[in-house]
Amino acid sequence: MFGEMLENVRDRKPLIHNITNYVTVNDCANILLACGGSPIMADDINEVEEITAICGGLNINIGTLNQRTIPSMIAAGKKANELGHPVVLDPVGAGASNLRTSTALELLEKVQFTVIRGNISEIKTLATGNGTTKGVDADVTDSITEETLEQGAVFAKNFAAKTGSVIAITGAIDIVADRDKAYCIYNGNPMMSSITGTGCQLSALVAAYVTANPGMALDGAAAAVCAMGLCGETAYKRLADLDGNSSYRNYIIDAIYNLDGKTLDRNAKYKII
Amino acid sequence: MFGEMLENVRDRKPLIHNITNYVTVNDCANILLACGGSPIMADDINEVEEITAICGGLNINIGTLNQRTIPSMIAAGKKANELGHPVVLDPVGAGASNLRTSTALELLEKVQFTVIRGNISEIKTLATGNGTTKGVDADVTDSITEETLEQGAVFAKNFAAKTGSVIAITGAIDIVADRDKAYCIYNGNPMMSSITGTGCQLSALVAAYVTANPGMALDGAAAAVCAMGLCGETAYKRLADLDGNSSYRNYIIDAIYNLDGKTLDRNAKYKII
Amino acid sequence: MFGEMLENVRDRKPLIHNITNYVTVNDCANILLACGGSPIMADDINEVEEITAICGGLNINIGTLNQRTIPSMIAAGKKANELGHPVVLDPVGAGASNLRTSTALELLEKVQFTVIRGNISEIKTLATGNGTTKGVDADVTDSITEETLEQGAVFAKNFAAKTGSVIAITGAIDIVADRDKAYCIYNGNPMMSSITGTGCQLSALVAAYVTANPGMALDGAAAAVCAMGLCGETAYKRLADLDGNSSYRNYIIDAIYNLDGKTLDRNAKYKII
Repeated sequence: MFGEMLENVRDRKPLIHNITNYVTVNDCANILLACGGSPIMADDINEVEEITAICGGLNINIGTLNQRTIPSMIAAGKKANELGHPVVLDPVGAGASNLRTSTALELLEKVQFTVIRGNISEIKTLATGNGTTKGVDADVTDSITEETLEQGAVFAKNFAAKTGSVIAITGAIDIVADRDKAYCIYNGNPMMSSITGTGCQLSALVAAYVTANPGMALDGAAAAVCAMGLCGETAYKRLADLDGNSSYRNYIIDAIYNLDGKTLDRNAKYKII
Repeated sequence: MFGEMLENVRDRKPLIHNITNYVTVNDCANILLACGGSPIMADDINEVEEITAICGGLNINIGTLNQRTIPSMIAAGKKANELGHPVVLDPVGAGASNLRTSTALELLEKVQFTVIRGNISEIKTLATGNGTTKGVDADVTDSITEETLEQGAVFAKNFAAKTGSVIAITGAIDIVADRDKAYCIYNGNPMMSSITGTGCQLSALVAAYVTANPGMALDGAAAAVCAMGLCGETAYKRLADLDGNSSYRNYIIDAIYNLDGKTLDRNAKYKII
Repeated sequence: MFGEMLENVRDRKPLIHNITNYVTVNDCANILLACGGSPIMADDINEVEEITAICGGLNINIGTLNQRTIPSMIAAGKKANELGHPVVLDPVGAGASNLRTSTALELLEKVQFTVIRGNISEIKTLATGNGTTKGVDADVTDSITEETLEQGAVFAKNFAAKTGSVIAITGAIDIVADRDKAYCIYNGNPMMSSITGTGCQLSALVAAYVTANPGMALDGAAAAVCAMGLCGETAYKRLADLDGNSSYRNYIIDAIYNLDGKTLDRNAKYKII
């Protein structure tokens, strides 16, 4: 099924509006092109509603949020809601500053998100209203392992029920859940955390998948998470002696470019709880 | 002749001031270095005139325009005009929002551009004053093919006559025209549209070429378009099994770095109408 | 000793707050991850103090400074000083515009920097209060060679004494000095100037090294400069026929990722004067 969703992205070429950070924006654009989608970046308050209107989906990422772009995020999000477009939130660093936490909470209040994707620290911050995130990476004490998986899935389902969004918590094991069902995804490679923006790229990918597969937000998001993890594995196998994280970054995007539905179906590793 | 123009870029090392979007800015800087030029990015209203004054040419790209940078674009453009520096406009997404269309038109009114480079949808928007651009890519119904080439060349020449600028319309076949003469350029590879920013990079390259070849804006722009297309071909030949759009991006810039005048002369594919 | 400092970065994983330009920000993030550190980028005045407080060190780079981010740089710098965190300044393009020169001088006045890293033109601008920098690259008439090395070292020591900062002047030969002692470093490769942001990346690396090696700012900065130069050499050796500056950029970051303490100790080339 995930394979079919991937092929829908290639066939339907969803145009995704991104209001995102300037650190990883180029990678987000290239991964959207790699998966078969098309990116447009626009963050001025005077154009975000119009831009969102010509797109199929919206991806909001607070990675380098600032006073100029926060109102743009809200305006674009509301417009996308009005038009019935899927909207993804990546609450980068929520919990690391009051500005990030309060902006993420304000976005949750004013915009109905289709999918919220973050690491466990970020998602916990949104769920509890305050956080102890150390920077933009997950706090190690929070990590989801086989032991805490059941508990993590319950947490994700509850937060999904509360927000009406699909919740995607990524880490060593990824959880993608709505109120009833949680995918626990085992694809991925630890080296993915040695490059900046794999999370941001995944959020853009999720936006493409849920846009190209209307009405299937849970499965679409899970398919995107599997695809990204699988490409992290493929890219890892490709590493040669002198390669490091910079080559690895290129190889992941290359792998997304080359991935097809059959390969995704054959290699997706998950269970449902 | 194009080869000589390339060598002039290598010899004269033009310093190019870029006011450009944050999506592809790094690639623009690296392609300027690859071709033998030197980039400087500066967009604050309090320094753009000074920065432009120490440069040889100016490249204005509206890709992620915002209220802070629009006045900077106008001020820098006027200053460059005053000093007789070449100025390139890349009207990214003109037609996709009123802000982009009106900003591009305002720029055309207040700044005399040496070259305007865009896809056919963007250039049509500028020529007609309104547009139906779908995002930042050209509308397929607009594309220039062998059948519409003559008509496209007439359109480009007319718009060149009206603006006093060289018009570079890039697509499957590229047209670079002044009021009298149009280069129709056949270099390039379709995969170039699978990476973000080949257009932005080309505009930066055009700025370097026209700056290093004063008084030869038409030929300089055409040489840059041929060089970019040829490097898209070279990079494509270099692709290995696991490579995708991310490696392709690197290979194009690498090819620009390695391109010499003889190779460009030997492989430039164009006709003049 | 440098090798041990590198290993300290890997062990202590310093979290570095970067207020930096949007041209090379992705490379700065990836090189911080490559060396074993962790990056966070945040530039809004409403969060920079909080973000700096959860980090170990701060890296301020004025590459695309603007009116919104200048107060953020000052606020973050003061907070870092209060907390005793190392602060690095990269005065990109100081001397190229009054805005850059005056901002750099204001930063020097209001913030106590642990290390100031720039090319000779930028550092001279800071030392004399005015400059003739041509763009973001060093003026050739200023370059440090074997003949001007002694004089350069005296200049660096004097400016170090005046500012209380370690001064790192990078070029064909690098000088890293405090008031008493100057490392003259011979690692590096001329091709490093053919990619954008090797300087910015080095400043981020310096921030990681001085943060992970408290109280050893001179040696830490020198170790980072050696490491960067050595990786420029390693990456150069790796270049294949079709490679150019874009692949070279990836190879340098890859080399930082793979560098270990022993290799650094064995290959660091410097003398002390």
